[in-house]
Order: sequence, then C-alpha cells, then structure tokens
Amino acid sequence: MTLWGGRFRDSLEDSAWQLNASIAFDRRLAEQDVRGSQAWAKALCNSGLLTPQENAQIQAGLETILTELREGSFRFQPKDEDIHTAVERRLAELIGEPAGKLHTARSRNDQVATDFRLWVLEAIARLGASLREFQSVLVQRAEQAGALVLPGYTHLQRAQPILLSHWWLAHFWPLQRDRERLHDLRKRTAILPLGSGALAGAPFPIDRQALAAELGFEAPCANSLDGVSDRDFAAEFLFCASLIGLHLSRLCESMVIFTSAEFGFFTLADAYSTGSSLMPQKKNPDLFELGRAKAGKLVGLLGGLLTTLKGLPSTYDKDLQEDKPPVFAAYDTLMELLPALSGALATLQVNPPRLAAALDAALYATDLADYLVEKGLPFRLAHELVGKVVRLAEERGVPIDRLPLEVYQSVSPRFEADLYAVFDPLRSVSRRRAEGGTAPEAVQRQLAQAKALLAKVETQDNQSISSDGA
Amino acid sequence: MTLWGGRFRDSLEDSAWQLNASIAFDRRLAEQDVRGSQAWAKALCNSGLLTPQENAQIQAGLETILTELREGSFRFQPKDEDIHTAVERRLAELIGEPAGKLHTARSRNDQVATDFRLWVLEAIARLGASLREFQSVLVQRAEQAGALVLPGYTHLQRAQPILLSHWWLAHFWPLQRDRERLHDLRKRTAILPLGSGALAGAPFPIDRQALAAELGFEAPCANSLDGVSDRDFAAEFLFCASLIGLHLSRLCESMVIFTSAEFGFFTLADAYSTGSSLMPQKKNPDLFELGRAKAGKLVGLLGGLLTTLKGLPSTYDKDLQEDKPPVFAAYDTLMELLPALSGALATLQVNPPRLAAALDAALYATDLADYLVEKGLPFRLAHELVGKVVRLAEERGVPIDRLPLEVYQSVSPRFEADLYAVFDPLRSVSRRRAEGGTAPEAVQRQLAQAKALLAKVETQDNQSISSDGA
Amino acid sequence: MTLWGGRFRDSLEDSAWQLNASIAFDRRLAEQDVRGSQAWAKALCNSGLLTPQENAQIQAGLETILTELREGSFRFQPKDEDIHTAVERRLAELIGEPAGKLHTARSRNDQVATDFRLWVLEAIARLGASLREFQSVLVQRAEQAGALVLPGYTHLQRAQPILLSHWWLAHFWPLQRDRERLHDLRKRTAILPLGSGALAGAPFPIDRQALAAELGFEAPCANSLDGVSDRDFAAEFLFCASLIGLHLSRLCESMVIFTSAEFGFFTLADAYSTGSSLMPQKKNPDLFELGRAKAGKLVGLLGGLLTTLKGLPSTYDKDLQEDKPPVFAAYDTLMELLPALSGALATLQVNPPRLAAALDAALYATDLADYLVEKGLPFRLAHELVGKVVRLAEERGVPIDRLPLEVYQSVSPRFEADLYAVFDPLRSVSRRRAEGGTAPEAVQRQLAQAKALLAKVETQDNQSISSDGA
Amino acid sequence: MTLWGGRFRDSLEDSAWQLNASIAFDRRLAEQDVRGSQAWAKALCNSGLLTPQENAQIQAGLETILTELREGSFRFQPKDEDIHTAVERRLAELIGEPAGKLHTARSRNDQVATDFRLWVLEAIARLGASLREFQSVLVQRAEQAGALVLPGYTHLQRAQPILLSHWWLAHFWPLQRDRERLHDLRKRTAILPLGSGALAGAPFPIDRQALAAELGFEAPCANSLDGVSDRDFAAEFLFCASLIGLHLSRLCESMVIFTSAEFGFFTLADAYSTGSSLMPQKKNPDLFELGRAKAGKLVGLLGGLLTTLKGLPSTYDKDLQEDKPPVFAAYDTLMELLPALSGALATLQVNPPRLAAALDAALYATDLADYLVEKGLPFRLAHELVGKVVRLAEERGVPIDRLPLEVYQSVSPRFEADLYAVFDPLRSVSRRRAEGGTAPEAVQRQLAQAKALLAKVETQDNQSISSDGA
Repeated sequence: MTLWGGRFRDSLEDSAWQLNASIAFDRRLAEQDVRGSQAWAKALCNSGLLTPQENAQIQAGLETILTELREGSFRFQPKDEDIHTAVERRLAELIGEPAGKLHTARSRNDQVATDFRLWVLEAIARLGASLREFQSVLVQRAEQAGALVLPGYTHLQRAQPILLSHWWLAHFWPLQRDRERLHDLRKRTAILPLGSGALAGAPFPIDRQALAAELGFEAPCANSLDGVSDRDFAAEFLFCASLIGLHLSRLCESMVIFTSAEFGFFTLADAYSTGSSLMPQKKNPDLFELGRAKAGKLVGLLGGLLTTLKGLPSTYDKDLQEDKPPVFAAYDTLMELLPALSGALATLQVNPPRLAAALDAALYATDLADYLVEKGLPFRLAHELVGKVVRLAEERGVPIDRLPLEVYQSVSPRFEADLYAVFDPLRSVSRRRAEGGTAPEAVQRQLAQAKALLAKVETQDNQSISSDGA
Repeated sequence: MTLWGGRFRDSLEDSAWQLNASIAFDRRLAEQDVRGSQAWAKALCNSGLLTPQENAQIQAGLETILTELREGSFRFQPKDEDIHTAVERRLAELIGEPAGKLHTARSRNDQVATDFRLWVLEAIARLGASLREFQSVLVQRAEQAGALVLPGYTHLQRAQPILLSHWWLAHFWPLQRDRERLHDLRKRTAILPLGSGALAGAPFPIDRQALAAELGFEAPCANSLDGVSDRDFAAEFLFCASLIGLHLSRLCESMVIFTSAEFGFFTLADAYSTGSSLMPQKKNPDLFELGRAKAGKLVGLLGGLLTTLKGLPSTYDKDLQEDKPPVFAAYDTLMELLPALSGALATLQVNPPRLAAALDAALYATDLADYLVEKGLPFRLAHELVGKVVRLAEERGVPIDRLPLEVYQSVSPRFEADLYAVFDPLRSVSRRRAEGGTAPEAVQRQLAQAKALLAKVETQDNQSISSDGA
Repeated sequence: MTLWGGRFRDSLEDSAWQLNASIAFDRRLAEQDVRGSQAWAKALCNSGLLTPQENAQIQAGLETILTELREGSFRFQPKDEDIHTAVERRLAELIGEPAGKLHTARSRNDQVATDFRLWVLEAIARLGASLREFQSVLVQRAEQAGALVLPGYTHLQRAQPILLSHWWLAHFWPLQRDRERLHDLRKRTAILPLGSGALAGAPFPIDRQALAAELGFEAPCANSLDGVSDRDFAAEFLFCASLIGLHLSRLCESMVIFTSAEFGFFTLADAYSTGSSLMPQKKNPDLFELGRAKAGKLVGLLGGLLTTLKGLPSTYDKDLQEDKPPVFAAYDTLMELLPALSGALATLQVNPPRLAAALDAALYATDLADYLVEKGLPFRLAHELVGKVVRLAEERGVPIDRLPLEVYQSVSPRFEADLYAVFDPLRSVSRRRAEGGTAPEAVQRQLAQAKALLAKVETQDNQSISSDGA
Repeated sequence: MTLWGGRFRDSLEDSAWQLNASIAFDRRLAEQDVRGSQAWAKALCNSGLLTPQENAQIQAGLETILTELREGSFRFQPKDEDIHTAVERRLAELIGEPAGKLHTARSRNDQVATDFRLWVLEAIARLGASLREFQSVLVQRAEQAGALVLPGYTHLQRAQPILLSHWWLAHFWPLQRDRERLHDLRKRTAILPLGSGALAGAPFPIDRQALAAELGFEAPCANSLDGVSDRDFAAEFLFCASLIGLHLSRLCESMVIFTSAEFGFFTLADAYSTGSSLMPQKKNPDLFELGRAKAGKLVGLLGGLLTTLKGLPSTYDKDLQEDKPPVFAAYDTLMELLPALSGALATLQVNPPRLAAALDAALYATDLADYLVEKGLPFRLAHELVGKVVRLAEERGVPIDRLPLEVYQSVSPRFEADLYAVFDPLRSVSRRRAEGGTAPEAVQRQLAQAKALLAKVETQDNQSISSDGA
C-alpha cells in the first residue's frame, strides 16, 4: 500500500522502491507520528471534519498502535513506504473506514516535519540532561582536586602553574555554552508545521494555535511554504552536536597526552582502558581517542546536511528526506560517547608526584617579570630582562631557580635576594585572584557558580523528557 | 621588533616569519585593538599599576593611533608581527617608556580574543542590519504582488495555486530565524576574555566586571583557561553565515528557474543581469547563480574552522590564529551578496500572463478531493478517486477541467455539475485561511506580522554599530 | 574474550565496551579477515613458525568459518569485540591450541588495515562495474536520440541548439573520469600492510612479497609505521565517491528541471516516479531528487573522515577505527543509487514536440554573428550588431526570425536576404563539426569513442570481483 | 567595456558589478590567458579565419601584453570585468581592429577553463617540486639519525623500540603517495576545453588536436558540453592538497608532542620557534601548530567547492566562477607551509639522552612474548603470560627487567635466565628485518628505495615548470 497510487498505472520498480522508501530510518518517529495524528484527529473533530465518534475510534486505534509499538508487537509490512503509511495502514486494519479520514487536509510534508520536530525536542532534552551529568563529573573532579597544582600549557609548552581544579573547570564552560545553544535551539524547533498541508495551508478552519499547544509547541509556523521546507532546526542541531563533539575532542586530546608515560599526570582505570593483541604491556586510552575521532564524524554529518540543503528550490523537495539520518546518527554518537567518557573521567587516578615533578622553575618566569614590575620596571623591559635570565640559565644548563644572585644582578640590579620566593607554586597561583583566575579563592567562586548552574532546574527540558513517557 | 625576543639567540628565518606573522589579516582588528588597550590602561590605572599621568599619556597616544588608522596615515613596519605589536610599537614611538607598561598582566592570548570578539560584535550588528534591509525588499515585493496567483511547486512539479505574496514571504521567515540566531550569538560573544592573561588569570587586582562594562561586554569569562581558548563564537558566526548562505541559495535557485524562458515568471532588470561574450542574445541571472554558489564557500569556511579546532589540547594553541580569516571572509561574502541580490529582487519585473498561463487544471486536484470530502467521503478514498480522474484525463489527452461530467460520474456518483467551480485560482487560495495559509486574509495577517518584526528597534545591535564610529 | 586481557584486573565497563567495540560494523570484513588469516598462516608455515600440520588445521578451520559465514550459520558472541576476535575465538573452538599460534607476529593493527584494503579493492571493482552499466544506459539513450535537437542551456538560459545525443553523452565523460580515478586508486590500495606488526615490523623472517602476491596485492608497504596508519586509500575512496555523487547530482538536477511541466522534455515512467499523499495529480521525480541529495551525504562522509584524520600523531591511533563506517556508507549509497537512477533514465520517455517548441529564434544569434564574420566583420563587432538586432526585436515584441530585412540592414548593410537560413536547427548543429562539437558526425565519432571505452575489458577489476567468489 | 553589452539598455548597477566581476582573482591567470590566446589566434589562422598578417599583429600585441604583465606595467581599468576582457581591451588599444577577430568561435566559457587548467598544470609541477624538497629533508634526517632508537608509540603509549631513521621515513611515504596523486591528476587536467565554444563546439574547422599539442595538453575534450563545465580537476587538486595538509598535520602533531618538555626528544632551532609576549621563558612550536591548523583550512576549501558544485544543472553556470579562489588559496597555503616546515625540520636538534631515557623495559614485552614463542608456546598464550608478568611488576612497582627470575618462573617455567637479554634496544629492532620493518638493514633498504624515488627525474613535471618561463 502507498498513500498515492491512484493515478499510476505501474507500481515502483524494486530499485526505485528501495531508494525511495524511508521506513528503514523514519520508523524511529513512530511514537511522534502517533502523537501527531492524535492531535490532528482532535483538531479535525473540533473543526467538524470528524464526528466525535469517529474521533474516538481514531484515538483508540492510535492508542492501540502506541501500545503495540512500545511492546514491540507492531508489525511493519514490506510495502510500508514510510512510518506515516505504516501507521495509517495499521489504523485502517484496526478501525476500518474512519482511518481514511485522518489524512484530511494533511500532507506527509507537514506531518513528517511535525514528527521530526517532536523527536528533536525530545533529543534536545535528553542530550541536555546527558551533558549536565557530564558536567557534574567535571565539578566533582574539580572538588576532589583540592590544592593540587600542575603546569598550565600553551602550545603544549609549560606556561604557568595552575590549579588542577581550575583545569577541570575549564572543560565545564564549553559544555555550559553547548547547553545554552540547545536551549536557544529549542525555541526555534518548537514551531509547528502541522496545518501547512502539502505547501499551501489547510483548506478547512483548523485552529493551529490550539494544535500547537496540544503538541507542546510554542506557535504555529507563520508561512506554510516555509513550514514544510524549513530544516534549519536539523542543521542547527547538527551544529550544536558538532561543537559538543569538538569540546569533547579537545578534552580527549588532553587526556591522551596526560595519560602518556611521559606526562603521567593521570592513570586510567582498567575498566576504562584497553590493551593490545600483540603487545602485552599496553594500556591504551582508546575511549579518549574515539572521543576525539567522533568529532570528525559529527562535523561530517553537519557538512553533509548543509550540502544537501544547498540550492534547493523553495518549498518541499524530496531531498529533505535526507534530513533525519544525520540527526539520528549525531544524537546516537553523543549519547554513546558521553557516558563512556564521563565514566572514564570519574574513575581515573591523579598522580600528584607527577604533577609536582612537572613544575619546573621556568614556569615562574612571568612571576619573575611581575617581581620586576613591582620594583618599578615597565613590563616590556621586565619581560626582556627575564628572557635574558632564561637564556643565561640555559647556557649554563641550570634551571633559573639555581642561578646565583650575582648572575641575576648582572642582568638587572633590581633583582635582590627575595627573588627566589617567586619559585613557589602556591604563591604563584594565589596571586591570580582576579575573576576567572587560578587562585584558590577565585576557583572556589567559580566552582560555586558552576554548581549553581547545574542545580538550576530546567523545567521545560524536563517536561519534554517526561512527556515522552519513557 | 617582536614582543618576545629576550631569550632567543636567532631571529626568525624568513619562511618561518611569513608563516607565523598574522599582520596580513589581523590588521583589520586595529581599531578594536586600540579600544581594548584604552580600556586595559584604564583598568591598570584603577589598580594602581599605572599612574594617572602614565594613563593619560597612553590614552592620548592611542587616540593618535586611532586617528592615524582612520586617516590611513598609520604606517605598518615590515617587522610588525601582528596588530598588537604594531600598535605597541607605534605607541612607544609616540610616548616612549610608559608604552612599555601597557602590556602588564596582559598576554596577546587574552588580547586577541578580546579584539576579535569586539569585531564580531560589530559584524553581528552590521550583518543583522543588512539582513533587515533584505527582508524589507521581500515585504515590499509581497505588498506589490496584490492578488497574483502562481503555481506552488513541490518537487519542482506544479502542486497547488498560491499567492505570489505568500511566496515572497516564504523567504522572509528563514532570514528572520537567521537574525534570531545572530541575536542569540551576540550574548555568547559578549563575554570578555581580557584579564585571563596568557592562561592563568591576572596577577594584579583588576576589576574585570568594570572592564567588561567599559568595553560593552556582558560579563567577564568565568575561567581564564577557557577564556583564551574559546572560539565557539567564531564557529557559531560561521554557522549563522552558512545558514544565511543556504537560505539565499534556495531563493537564488528559484530565481534562476523562474527567470528561465520556460518558466518566464520574472524578468531581470538589465542593471542586474549580464550577457555572453559569444552569444549576443543572452541575458543571464549571474547574480543569482553567484548567490547560490557562495553558500558552498560559506559552508566550506565553517567546515574548515571546525576541522582546525578538532582535537586541540586545552588552552591556547597557535592553531587558533586561523580563526580570523574564515570569519572575515564569511562576513565580506555576505555583505557583498546581500545588497546585490536585494537590488536584483527589488527591480525585477513580474510577468502576470506567464503566471496565469502556468495555472493548469491539475493544480486543483486536491480541491477536487476536498470537494468529495465535503460530500462525505473519507479523504483517502477521495484522493484515490481523483487520482483515477487524473489518469483518465491523461489517457484522453485533456486537462481535468475539460473532462465531461459523465466521466467524473463513472468514477464516483458523488461528482455533480458544481464540481467545475473548483477550477478557480482565487477560490482555491481563499479556502486556505488557517494561520500560515495562502488565503489573501491569512497573508495579510502574515504581512502585518512581518512588518511588525522589521519595525522593532533592535537597540543593542544599533548601539554596537554606532560605537564603531564609522 | 578479548585478545588482550592479561595485564588487566578489571574488564571493561559496559558503556566503555559499547563505545570501544567495532563488531557492529567490522563484521562486514569477515570474509576478508579469513582470507587474510589463511595467507598469514601459510606465511608463518613457510617461515617455520607453524608446522605443516598446524597450518593444515588452521586452513581447514578457517575454511569451515568461511562456510559458516556464507551460510549465515556463524554465531557472533556478545564478547566478540571485533571481527578478528570473533574469527580467532571461533577458530579456537574448532581446532583448539593451534589457533593460538595464528596471531604470531601479527597485530590487529596490520590485520585490520589488510582486511579493509581487501574490502576496498572489491568495492572499487564492483562500483566500477556499476558505473559502467550506468554509462551504457547513457550511450543507449544517445543512440536512441537520433537527430533530435533541443536547446543547450548555459545559466539555465537557452543558449544554442544541440543534439540530444550530445547532451546524453555529456554525462558519460564525468563518469569515465570517475572510473579512471577508481583505477588510479586501485594501485594505491593494493599495498599490503600485513607484516607490519603493531608498528615495528615482523620479528620473524616473513616473505612479504610472497604474502602480497598471495592476497592479490601489488607490493608490501615500504614502512611498517606508515603501513599501520595509512588511511589515504579510505579518504581517496570517499573523494571518488563524492565526485561520482556530484556528477549524479548534476544530472539529477537537469532531470528534475527537464521533467517539470514548464520544460516537459522528458516524462518519467510510472515505475520510476512517485505521488503525493495529498495531491492526487502529482507525479514526482523523487528518485532524481534523492540522487541530488545523496551528494550531500557523500561530501559529508568525506569531510568527516578528513576531519577525523587531522592532527593524529604518527602510527596507529584508535581514531583510525572510524575509517570504515563512512566508506561502507558511501559504497552502499552509490550501489543503491546507480541502478535506480539508470533504470529511471532507461525508461523515461522523450517528448520531441516539447524539444522542438523550445527552439526559439534567439538560439541562432551566435549563428547570425558567425554569418557576419563570414561576410568579413570581426567577431567582436558582429556580436555587438547582433546584440542590437536582439534588442530591436525585443522592443518590437517579435522573435528575431520575424524581424524584416530592412531592420537588419539598418543595423548593418552586410545583412542580406540569405540571413534567414541561419534559423535552422540542423544547419546550426551541423556547423559544429570540430572534435567534441555537437554536429551529427562529431557526435557519431564521440559515440564510437565512448563505446570503445565501455568495451575495453578491465581484466584486473574483474579479477578482483571474481576472487570474492560471491 | 564589457564583452557583451550589445543587447542591454542599462549597465550593471554597482553592487551587481562588484559581485559579478572576477578580475580581483582571475588576474592571476593573465599569462595563461595570453598564451591561450596566442594559440587560438594561430588556430584561427590555420583555419583561414585570420590572415597571416592579422595573426602576426595579434601575436605581437599579445607578446607586448606579456611583457607588460611581467614588468608590472600592465594597467588594469576599472571596467575590466575579468582577465579576458582586460587582455582583449588592451590588445585593441595596441593593434586596433584585428583584436576584434580574436574571439571568433571562442567563448569565455572555454577560454577560462583553458586558462585555469594551464595554471593548475603549473601548480601541480611546482607543488610536486616543493614536496620533493620536503621529502629530501626527511631522507637527510633519516640518514643523520644513525642507530638512534626511540620508543615507537601507538595510542600515544609507548609500544616498541624503533629506529629514529625509520620514524623519519614513515613521513616520507605519505608525501610520495601525494606526488603520485598529483601525477595522476596531471593527465586529467591536461585535457583541452578550448574549441568548445560557449557549449556547443566550434562552428569553424579548428584542428583541436594541434591546438592541444600547441598548449601542452594531451588531448582535446571529447564533449563540448562537458568541456565547459568540468571542474573535476579543481576538486581533485583540492583533495590532493587536503591530503598533503593532513599528512603535514600528523607530522606537526608529533613534532608538537616531541618538543614538549615532557617528551623532549627534539629541540627547535631559535630561528624556527617563537616566544610569548607575557611569559619570558616560552619557546613555542608555532610553525608546527600552524602546519596542523592549515589542514583544516584545506579541508574546508575542498568541502566548499564540492558544495558549490552540488546540484548544478548541466553545462556552464556562473557558479563555476567560484572554482578559482579555493584552488589559489590551497596552493598558496601549501607553498608557504612546505618551506617553513622543512626548514624547521632540517634545523632541529635531536636529544639522544632523552630518547634513551624513554626506552623503558615494558617496551620489550612483545619481545618477551616472542621469546616464549620461540620456546614453543602459542603466541596467544605467551601474550597472556607476559601480561601477567606486567601486572606483577606493576604491583611490585618495579619495571619488568628488574623482576627476579623466580617471579617469571612462577608465571611460566619456560622462562629462563636468558630472558633478560631481550631488554636491549638494538636486539629488539634488529629482529624486525622483514621488508618494511625497523631493523637497521631493512631501514637501509628502505632509504635506498626512497632516494631512488627522489632521484627519478620527472621530465614532464619539469617541463611544465620551465614552460612557464618564470
């Protein structure tokens, strides 16, 4: 059965059927399709296009289908072209003729856009919740880090001492922005296409505001042509997913480096690392490498959809059917990635002696320049003088905290014996008290801010999840 | 001069210099760099790191530089590695030693991120304004379209009659979403990195809240490590630009098709079309083809930056220097595209006879099915019966409005003589009165909604533009 | 069972297992894995690391596995991490201890790279064959087109008359280049990684030249580190697939346009077109729209893998596991697309009257300029004069072949009564006799060239296919 | 002046002109345009469309233009829409009327495609030469590395000892494949579009074989429609550039890691590293980070062009004008990157003590398993037993070479006192003698192979370079 055979003499050739049918992936929209149809039947009834009795039959039939779907007893047929066909076909089997009235004034064009938006709204909520859990692991690690200091790196070169807690929290904020972006996306997704028909709008007096409210949307779309062809929300979802992927990839890269033998800052739990089929000693950070790699996949999914959308003429084109597979794939990728990575982070072991060993004296060169600034030198000059100190130390093959005072004084008479006090990790970090800095008190404030954001109940998102009934 | 030579024995080899230097593109941040430095000097002064007199000298020197930049008399030197170096170098020439104090507690890492965010904030405002102008052309075209009806297309096949005004407005809403996205991006861009130092925060008591307010930011960043490495705003800008590009590409594709000889709905003004060097008769829609093509460029710029960001270890890496060229290129592309395309749209000529000629009878097949629905048939059955009508008409080689009543009645006795009334464009569109539909009254409401959105003064955006002083 | 548990105290946590395991997709390499293992066992035997008896046991066990795989009776176990583990696990069940010797001096790093290259070699051959079939449909359509003339378009504006056969063949050559690219890729894919071990090479005297020959490779890789990390062939496969996708997308776009009511050049067979659930009259070119859309997916798969590969440190990283899903997806996409599209092309109906009707007089403007050139005018001047003719005709609202001679002569006295002879499609196309032109005789030569290329037996490719035994 | 104004009443509006004009970038094709025109004039003369005298005038005029271009005295005019217009305009200034005959039977469609292919052919040759120089630095570094051993890494975890020379050569082969790809691309680029006219072919008897030979092409294109619209060569160039970029990015990533304080294997020369404006001690591997980053840009350029090409209807569309900027950008990026990176590689200092210090005992675990294999155990069992050894050593906090014999024997009685001999870097690498392995003798053979490939004179490529005359 198809929903459109009337004018055709021949049915689709096999290869054409296979290319055209979307049931292989859009069956995932089954529950959304049923919910959308329930709301549509109610709207038709309110407009007098269905009798209350017909509506009741349809509602009951759809409820049965929902149960079958959830129990796994729903049987797809070989000729179910897409999920809409499958549901309508089954409804006809269950209730007979009234099923034929459900598609009144509705097209698969507005129907699928509605189903998909419902799905994305739920995906946004679930993904947001998963991000929040990931963030809470970061907060927890920051809290556990106490006053541990490690080198901060720029260009992967040791730069300045920082608190480990500060480092963990540096990965909290990108994910917070990701959640904000998802929140912004939510409002653009919650615009209802249903009632747009194939493209021209509904020819019967459907109350689309009520319909939108019924389905949890914020408003109906303002233009039916745009309503059936807008896939911005899918592209924006993929962009959000790509950025999440990038943020994870950057964290993962750091984890791969920090768990190397040479850095040795962290040791992975056995339950989150893997070995080699050839080399018996290997303990590999595969999860973090996969986390790094998946960003590529996500970026590709985004690029793919954008390319597909390029240059389509206005209103609905079949090309738009290609919107769902990348969105599903991006969602699944992240929902698989986030728990595995957060588990690995939660269980890794920090190695304080390795952190401490990495704090070489050169990390305090900036503090040394600041020391000269406090003695009245312009920073630019102080920087140059300390640069000379570094060069002299290198030529002598000693760290700068072992360089005798007279060498310092040969560079600048402002150097005095108290200079050696700068070579102290806690002194160094404690000075960076300005907001956002690495001083313990600044990090405490930052931590409080992060926890407050996590605690904030995101009512709307939670609603979306619970409305799914799962 | 570089800002970092102290510890080095050799200066950069030529090929290394050329690869490393960013002055070729970051000179575009000159004004932002000066404004950022003025605010920084003020903050240093408030913290006691500059005397009021030193601050005054610095402010005056920077003001001079700003004037030189605007007048085009600023001279870059071969060894100006980047814009920060150029400005500091010139400042030293102008005011001597106090210039060396400006970089206290500041790194180019937080400085460049601040400059770039200032630039993007202005770009958001200007791009938003340009989009608004483009939208106003669409509104104007919709108003001029009166009651003209043309076929709406799905799959580039004639689908149902729609109002031309509705078609124009269909392109208004995607751009409205683009403006919303830019608005959301604004708040994430207006987070101040300055005061993050190289990565660890400021070692002196800088009031970053005041600094943020001074520069028009909403808040300082919460974590200095994130502050110097966050390029989400650049990626999000490129995503917004890509979607704008896609929306334009879809409109352009329709314009290319509608100005073909075969469609002939629109004729381009001579001032917005081009000819052929070989074929004397040609009048080509080059602008719309370029508008379609540029979407590819924009998508590529986005993909490029996302790829560059993938897998970078945390905090600042030099890779981040590659953030600016794609953002500049995307902005320039759109700012060149929008006025050319809106000019072409504003001046094109609509050809009513061609629109009318395209309204063949098959466009009313859905109305015919609705006719049967109103006679009590379920839509699914009505659809099938009309499908048969279409097939019969095709076999006889006549349009469906020429098919005699008895043929209709052979398909279904519900068909009566009044069926022929459905073959009327205004009747067809007028039925689609539900919100978002193509009926004249619905389109009037839509138009009013669009105009209200255009009229809304976007205070903040305008501020950003005027603050640029240009 | 994993192949690497010895040193670990805990087994993988569930979420980590799920992320890490590749069996969901690499099971597709099952036959290649068995063939690779058979060759490896033989090599180990030749090196004295297996006795002939052990080798015979292994060969027999692997043969049994191959049979199980082909019959569908092979049972995967929940703890089969990847296809290599599954095969080795099953081998141990079948033959006991000797199975444990198979992995001597081999790592999954070189093993999976070998399996995957074997798979890609077969994919290249099959895809090439499918392309060849597609090309033969184009050739067939060109042959059927006879002397039909239609407007050639540039900028989607009518440009010059061309033969329909020439138009069909225009789509032959891009696919010919695609086959050439696949051919070039073949030689880079047929480089054997096996014998590279995990990264350092084989510690026993394996004859890798013999091993390469055994498996149908051209040579062993020259460097073991490169051998386990080179995924160029996967990226290049995706590039080839993307270009094929682009070529199809361009053809599809033309088909969508040419089957529109306004152009009407072609009519799709019912068996290759679809309808609307709402609009009974619709007959949509869905297949061609999907063909256009899939190019986006393919480009995304390419971009995704390139992004994943960016910035990986040298030799094997787990990120490389992400190489297979995009290659499988690209291959499946094309192998589904090509037969559906070629079926649609083979069965479409050409509408000669619509072609003829589109041949308006302006198409001969270039011929008119050439006419003046033959009368001795420089082309640049001739072009300008004919441009004026076009403008005069437009102002009078007549086609240029209806413009009286005196008007022509007012533009240039070189125009004489014989000018009207240029308005003839066959005269126009026949003049373009130079190689590659649209004259019937030139197209005949082109057709012969195309057929010769199709006839050329590609021995090597066919071998690859037959070696698969399927 | 434009080449197409005849039929137009109004000239292009400013914003339209700016969007449409391509002179800002296609002026780079100036010399190619002149060479193409010289060949075309010669062909016209051979066909009798120019007198020998006219041809001589044109050749002389074009020669003058070439001189002006090379001397920098060529003056572009504001209304030079593109390079073809500029050259033809200047030619008319120089020689008058005969200039108007040059465009006979030629369109900018086939002209620009020819110019661009000429440019790409030269770019291929120059880029190939630059890659060859880069490879020769790798060979040189490999030769200098002598018998130095360092840990090979997989997953960035220490895996097995390898020769440093082997590591350097691992980066030779990807670039060798890149050169092969460029070589394959060459043949597809050297197909001549000239003579295709706007789309339909040349209406005069032009000998296109001779024309192709004259310009250094291998053959004329077989189909004029394809000839003016084929941009495969541009896409393929961008793909080749992307892979080169990826190969460099992987090498760069390793360099960033190996020059970190924690690894310390290499020290950069001062002339190839940079400092920090804030932190006086910093010495950063900026060049390698930029090398890593640029891969993103290149991938983006590729994705951009592919997206632009998607879904274009057949023959020439103005969208194709967007082909040149990404190709120019990709070429420039690589030609800037390669010398800077090869300079940095050539001058870096290797730190043998750091290499040696990284060779911990666990690297020999595979050798230990092989030891058991040689004592008759199946590898799978040997692997498991050594895994236990590793675990025991870890529990005792000693490296495996310090574990007493009795502990070994508690794991397996096959262990005997001679086991300790495996803990020797040279013994380990020397065992991997199979082709492509890390044994000194295998690496010597590999080195010879690499040098032979470098020495191979690539006649054709060199010709292309010299033909440029620069």
